[in-house]
Amino acid sequence: MIKATVYVTIKQSVLDPQGNAVQGALHSMGFAEVGKVRIGKYLELELDTDNREEAEARLKEMCEKLLANTVVEDYRFELA
Amino acid sequence: MIKATVYVTIKQSVLDPQGNAVQGALHSMGFAEVGKVRIGKYLELELDTDNREEAEARLKEMCEKLLANTVVEDYRFELA
Repeated sequence: MIKATVYVTIKQSVLDPQGNAVQGALHSMGFAEVGKVRIGKYLELELDTDNREEAEARLKEMCEKLLANTVVEDYRFELA
Repeated sequence: MIKATVYVTIKQSVLDPQGNAVQGALHSMGFAEVGKVRIGKYLELELDTDNREEAEARLKEMCEKLLANTVVEDYRFELA
């Protein structure tokens, strides 16, 4: 079994309203030092295979097809 | 300026319906090797300070007060 971690982040050129909301909330709570905030997703998957090369190819496919919206999001993954 | 990365994950003992939904979707798309899926949040923050020790203490406070619901979520962070 391989454990994989996938990070899905909003592209730098795309607005992140959720991040802006969190930044505003932190400011109003007195955390004035907080600058830009960007929010993404973090996924942990267990893959029932021991072939790391195949797992990477399959993960790439999962990200492209379901996990990330590649129009506005970037992704990267790591195998444990 | 310090760049911080915060990971907020659902505690192991807590159900993750979003993760289960993604697992089901991946299965129905033919990714039968996918086992447990857990979904969390990934935040990138810019902190306008150069004091790493203070930044860590402040980040801990932000996580406890706003970024994570510590009843059902764990968090960890890294300073770049």
